[in-house]
Amino acid sequence: MAFFPDIEKIPYVGTASANPLSFHYYDAEKKVLGKSMAEHLRFAVCYWHSFAAPGDDVFGDGTWDRPWGNDVAGAQKKLAAAFEFFEKLGVAYFCFHDRDIAPEGATVRETEKNLRLIADEMATAMARSGVALLWGTANLFGHPRYAAGAATNPNPDVFAFAADQVKTALELTHELEGQNYVLWGGREGYDTLLNTDLRRESDQLGRFMEMVAEHKQKIGFEGTLLIEPKPCEPTKHQYDFDAASCFAFLQKYDLEKEFKLNIECNHATLAGHSFHHEVAYAIAHDLFGSIDANRGDPQNGWDTDQFPTNAEEFALVLYEILLAGGFSNGGLNFDAKLRRQSVAREDLFHAHIGGMDTVARAFDHAIALYETQVLANARAERYAGWQSPIGQSIQQRKATLETLSAHVHAGDLAMEPVSGRQEELENLVARAAR
Amino acid sequence: MAFFPDIEKIPYVGTASANPLSFHYYDAEKKVLGKSMAEHLRFAVCYWHSFAAPGDDVFGDGTWDRPWGNDVAGAQKKLAAAFEFFEKLGVAYFCFHDRDIAPEGATVRETEKNLRLIADEMATAMARSGVALLWGTANLFGHPRYAAGAATNPNPDVFAFAADQVKTALELTHELEGQNYVLWGGREGYDTLLNTDLRRESDQLGRFMEMVAEHKQKIGFEGTLLIEPKPCEPTKHQYDFDAASCFAFLQKYDLEKEFKLNIECNHATLAGHSFHHEVAYAIAHDLFGSIDANRGDPQNGWDTDQFPTNAEEFALVLYEILLAGGFSNGGLNFDAKLRRQSVAREDLFHAHIGGMDTVARAFDHAIALYETQVLANARAERYAGWQSPIGQSIQQRKATLETLSAHVHAGDLAMEPVSGRQEELENLVARAAR
Amino acid sequence: MAFFPDIEKIPYVGTASANPLSFHYYDAEKKVLGKSMAEHLRFAVCYWHSFAAPGDDVFGDGTWDRPWGNDVAGAQKKLAAAFEFFEKLGVAYFCFHDRDIAPEGATVRETEKNLRLIADEMATAMARSGVALLWGTANLFGHPRYAAGAATNPNPDVFAFAADQVKTALELTHELEGQNYVLWGGREGYDTLLNTDLRRESDQLGRFMEMVAEHKQKIGFEGTLLIEPKPCEPTKHQYDFDAASCFAFLQKYDLEKEFKLNIECNHATLAGHSFHHEVAYAIAHDLFGSIDANRGDPQNGWDTDQFPTNAEEFALVLYEILLAGGFSNGGLNFDAKLRRQSVAREDLFHAHIGGMDTVARAFDHAIALYETQVLANARAERYAGWQSPIGQSIQQRKATLETLSAHVHAGDLAMEPVSGRQEELENLVARAAR
Amino acid sequence: MAFFPDIEKIPYVGTASANPLSFHYYDAEKKVLGKSMAEHLRFAVCYWHSFAAPGDDVFGDGTWDRPWGNDVAGAQKKLAAAFEFFEKLGVAYFCFHDRDIAPEGATVRETEKNLRLIADEMATAMARSGVALLWGTANLFGHPRYAAGAATNPNPDVFAFAADQVKTALELTHELEGQNYVLWGGREGYDTLLNTDLRRESDQLGRFMEMVAEHKQKIGFEGTLLIEPKPCEPTKHQYDFDAASCFAFLQKYDLEKEFKLNIECNHATLAGHSFHHEVAYAIAHDLFGSIDANRGDPQNGWDTDQFPTNAEEFALVLYEILLAGGFSNGGLNFDAKLRRQSVAREDLFHAHIGGMDTVARAFDHAIALYETQVLANARAERYAGWQSPIGQSIQQRKATLETLSAHVHAGDLAMEPVSGRQEELENLVARAAR
Repeated sequence: MAFFPDIEKIPYVGTASANPLSFHYYDAEKKVLGKSMAEHLRFAVCYWHSFAAPGDDVFGDGTWDRPWGNDVAGAQKKLAAAFEFFEKLGVAYFCFHDRDIAPEGATVRETEKNLRLIADEMATAMARSGVALLWGTANLFGHPRYAAGAATNPNPDVFAFAADQVKTALELTHELEGQNYVLWGGREGYDTLLNTDLRRESDQLGRFMEMVAEHKQKIGFEGTLLIEPKPCEPTKHQYDFDAASCFAFLQKYDLEKEFKLNIECNHATLAGHSFHHEVAYAIAHDLFGSIDANRGDPQNGWDTDQFPTNAEEFALVLYEILLAGGFSNGGLNFDAKLRRQSVAREDLFHAHIGGMDTVARAFDHAIALYETQVLANARAERYAGWQSPIGQSIQQRKATLETLSAHVHAGDLAMEPVSGRQEELENLVARAAR
Repeated sequence: MAFFPDIEKIPYVGTASANPLSFHYYDAEKKVLGKSMAEHLRFAVCYWHSFAAPGDDVFGDGTWDRPWGNDVAGAQKKLAAAFEFFEKLGVAYFCFHDRDIAPEGATVRETEKNLRLIADEMATAMARSGVALLWGTANLFGHPRYAAGAATNPNPDVFAFAADQVKTALELTHELEGQNYVLWGGREGYDTLLNTDLRRESDQLGRFMEMVAEHKQKIGFEGTLLIEPKPCEPTKHQYDFDAASCFAFLQKYDLEKEFKLNIECNHATLAGHSFHHEVAYAIAHDLFGSIDANRGDPQNGWDTDQFPTNAEEFALVLYEILLAGGFSNGGLNFDAKLRRQSVAREDLFHAHIGGMDTVARAFDHAIALYETQVLANARAERYAGWQSPIGQSIQQRKATLETLSAHVHAGDLAMEPVSGRQEELENLVARAAR
Repeated sequence: MAFFPDIEKIPYVGTASANPLSFHYYDAEKKVLGKSMAEHLRFAVCYWHSFAAPGDDVFGDGTWDRPWGNDVAGAQKKLAAAFEFFEKLGVAYFCFHDRDIAPEGATVRETEKNLRLIADEMATAMARSGVALLWGTANLFGHPRYAAGAATNPNPDVFAFAADQVKTALELTHELEGQNYVLWGGREGYDTLLNTDLRRESDQLGRFMEMVAEHKQKIGFEGTLLIEPKPCEPTKHQYDFDAASCFAFLQKYDLEKEFKLNIECNHATLAGHSFHHEVAYAIAHDLFGSIDANRGDPQNGWDTDQFPTNAEEFALVLYEILLAGGFSNGGLNFDAKLRRQSVAREDLFHAHIGGMDTVARAFDHAIALYETQVLANARAERYAGWQSPIGQSIQQRKATLETLSAHVHAGDLAMEPVSGRQEELENLVARAAR
Repeated sequence: MAFFPDIEKIPYVGTASANPLSFHYYDAEKKVLGKSMAEHLRFAVCYWHSFAAPGDDVFGDGTWDRPWGNDVAGAQKKLAAAFEFFEKLGVAYFCFHDRDIAPEGATVRETEKNLRLIADEMATAMARSGVALLWGTANLFGHPRYAAGAATNPNPDVFAFAADQVKTALELTHELEGQNYVLWGGREGYDTLLNTDLRRESDQLGRFMEMVAEHKQKIGFEGTLLIEPKPCEPTKHQYDFDAASCFAFLQKYDLEKEFKLNIECNHATLAGHSFHHEVAYAIAHDLFGSIDANRGDPQNGWDTDQFPTNAEEFALVLYEILLAGGFSNGGLNFDAKLRRQSVAREDLFHAHIGGMDTVARAFDHAIALYETQVLANARAERYAGWQSPIGQSIQQRKATLETLSAHVHAGDLAMEPVSGRQEELENLVARAAR
């Protein structure tokens, strides 16, 4: 029995249509730069916000109509509803935490049994529908045992429990042919420095990540390992604060070749960066992996996880990704949730349609920027002076403070003011939108 | 002729006195843990806010009574007033930018001549007074030539000019027996990503820092090289955003042994971290160098650079530094400025006295925390479980996901809830204050 | 059977003791300015965070040991534990929402029956223990029916339901001799302006408040009606954003004589104000009523509701309240919760002891400021010029732009710079602490 | 001699053109809803950022090419350049502070003489060009005499000086047929509460505003008086924090009929509100006057005053204004400045063209929302229940808590969950863009 009985597969209808349950911009099959939009954008729906959460918040109970209990039978109904949604929406991928898809049992063995049962049904549903797994992950933050962290817990038995849970989730992801495996350190951080040994916890986390990379090799998983920066919430301060702190951590433990980053818009803005910055930083440091597509609320200081609505902001992000060659294993996962008042089942469609259309508009804009090379040319021109002898001597590491001082004292420097052209470039970007 | 004719050397009088121009807590000669407070705290006054700035802000003209022009004669008057202040206040150190102490000339040679002239007078004043140089630095952000950056400028001639300026300032610092040399990348960042090549600018900055480290070796400067994190302002986004992004940068260019960090309270809070966090992070990653002591305004989103007034906040910072062995070359520089309405000359004394007394109260509190070991014991107890066989197997890198999974499946895990004791520890900290 | 069997009544022991479960600063009976500290500070414990909440957060399940279910029998156990806590802690007051103390039933009548049953037991416990009710309130935000607001709901039946709930809660508060009745508009705001009619919702809220004031008169409740500002969370934007927006609202509906404000520290800081500002604003506009004592985390953008730990911040708040004559009906309610890791039952004591000791230290400081008049004198001196003829002509509304222009053109103005003395005053405040 | 010799009048060319110095969206003469776009949007250029400022910031000197000194001859050159710009850009309005257009003299009389001389030239330029004055204002924040406030200064002579300055500026605005007169309280606030008497300063400001309103009547100025909210900067906390605090203030002094608000986007966001919120609040409370069109930087906590680039954000603001009947005396003033690196003279054109095109795109979007009534219909439908008897009884002030309680107890409430439709409405808004 269908969970969304009144809804058909969402069609692409173009901008002229008034049908709200249709794509106006996202045309999955449309070819551009040699690939379909679906192949470029690699959209995924997340299990947690859309199927496992009740619509509660810290001040109130759940409001959403998700009529399945938290047992195995409920997990089966949830699976059916989720795949019905994926197919009707027309996305190629989904993502999940272990605990989203199957309930934790009274024992480790029962938990694994629950997971196994659902995983088998999931594999069947995937094969039937063609919907694939963008990434899997383990929930190491919801259960009280993880209140003080998973890998960074003061109790090594909790570390071990987390290790076992990740082992299972990684193997399950491998089995389901997931493209990536994500580690989000929800409780890897501190609530107070008073009881925290930063150096020790950093080493614990470093060793945990090494073990994950080792196990990936051992089982032959060829997907990408991703870590996901977030500055805070639920902890007061998370270790994976932002892309730069992740890069510092990965280098310290010689893991920068083993992991890439899953960048989330709302996490970027909570950390005091633009989404554009975090993606550009990751690309500039060879760390870019995948995206959690959402948006925060500029006036609210927590992770509101709203569906993206601002195509202008997203266009520049997609432009950077295009410049870097596009997604490889990564994709665009909607780590976004309905507002608590959005209680109609069809709201789940409106939200995802809006998100996908926003990204599609942004992508069209990004392609225009990419094809016209308006920004690439401006950048090239701006740094052209580095082709000069003095520029080359610096880049080739021949120059020293002394040779440069001599250059300066020889006079003849060219330091006339040159406009940074910010407003003009903003206009060129805006005009590139079609 | 004295600039502060009505003010005598500021005495330590203890808490019973009502004399506003006296120290109530800071007793320079008092011995604790084997050293005097002056030797522990290594206070420095900064030249720029206190002697070079006019008291203007973005909405209004200067209000302060700093009656010297921006020529060499003015620089001499300023020097005399500054040393009068250092001595009357009773600090052991000061800090300066090249442009604070001597005006830029029409040519590089004239600029150097100005600097030379003042440097000679400064050396004399230092010898006479015993006031030493905590650190020197170069102003690579004020002049329009640096509008688009110094080391990260799109014009390599500006890079060269900055290199020459740093060479001179580093050599001057060496000559004046400075304890450290600081690089603050005020314009090393971007105003817009639209015109910015992050990868290239990062490499430029990396090469610049390498050259500085090479030149330090060459001239035999034995002080510490420091970089100073700040997230933004004047740029939209600074490359040295926080301690973690500095660590990422330093590791990328194999410079993590060459540089340490100068952590500023207000820069920490603008970056979304507590001051305590930034210092603890730097210590945990062997990057701690020195401190710019000030505070921001929790409601204002720019660098207000106010004098520290919150002893409770500072106590935990000083406790971490004590745990790490105290300052070596570093110290506490008051990178803090008077409010624009503080137009009386004696306000400069009130502000520094308040800052020093705040730090002294905090230091007394920190020593109590250090001596009672109340936090050290709580931390030790919290992580005690890592002495267990499973804990040791993880720490010694013998455990794998598989061995840990086997441990979990063998049952017998000890994962009972244990309190994090945050509120109790907060009480213990508060009660340690004397 | 005791819920805290190992804990005796918390004694005042003074600063010399090492007993963690004791007051070091709060001496309830100590007389100062003619009243005991208990009479001055009027501490209250809140029911919701301390007894009704499970210790969950948006990312994880409850961790606290609160072993009562959400039925009437559980409500009875909760009541017993709460009063055991109030008495052992030694507070004079408590606060509750209707839904904290008794579960909502299947019908309005069953809900009232539940409330009645518990209210009778509560009255008995109050009489026996002498613990009184600082304020009561109604929970108009937790149930899904209030997702779109209570008084500002687009559905007038929800408005009516809320009106009935407030009627009952107000009458219950009256019956229990509550000192105040609080209205916190948790869902009175908007999630998006797209579906919101601001003018209409403002009028709805205005009418609701009028009806509450009318009913207060009708039943003869002599306590104070309070509204509680908060800028956001759970809504995107709350109508009672801060003290000033409450004042605007109250004036618009001629209610500024009927309501006062319950100011919460963490709500103030989320709104971009200092706690000190909000209290001072309320006092300056004759709106001050009561305080929700807590603190936020300066780096986290949500309502962390932590127990106050910063005595310096609180001292200035208490000083303003002393200047204004102290609390009348209001008091200090700890709207503060344990951290999720604080799972030991005794943590509830540590937290409240810390909060009360912090406030007691602050109060001692405030009294020193009050008695020495150091700030009062500085303010008086600063504005002394308003005693001049021109100052008087302005204050007495005789001056016009024309008379003042004539005064200016007559010359002889006294506009020499005068220091604002901020740093000196900060020192005087710090030194007043004993 | 032209200041922009290479630039012709900026034409409207439509979206197909690649000419950067042209409007792609703003077609001044295009008629829509019965008026031209120029008549609807009433664009103004501001004198201060564009002609009076040097391009400095708190960390560096001016970079812009504004080759006029700060004397009367410079003021004349500036005037010529400004009107050349206004005409070539094709705006109908400009705005200024008294000190932007003419230098302050050594005496009040000399200052007035300078103003008179420039005002006469300005009147001539206005008559010749047809460019009109949207609003005038007085700079009561730049000079050191105003460091502690103008109307809220502790010195009544400064109050008087400010009154004289406003009298002159108001009369000048009247003479030049300005459409509005603006009061921005740049220094009306506090740097520290320690030295501040909030109640007294509020009363001072109230009396000042009354006098301005009285003088307006006296001289027969028929423009609108506007006050401009801003939360902070340069002060720690400004009294006109946001629209709601202005409304509270105006009501307190019975001035809510005399003043309206000039809402600035960047001020709104610094206060923790969306621009949309502040405009909607002002309209809902009959306070809307005019707009300072700009944007802040979401990651920077100061007033960056950038040119608007986000058409989606602006569309909803213009939609609210359309719903409210459009601008009457108000308009859209670009209180926006070039970035410090934008040193080319033509950057001033790029910036304003971009701003005007952004607003024009937004306006086109707003008209679509207005004409399709998509939001108006959704709102009407959402509140339709208020037509019911119970809804009417509340709105007509007949209902009481008791009648509503009886309604609830009678049962038969209609409180089924209804979707708030936020995501669907966001989609409808996005799709309305043409």
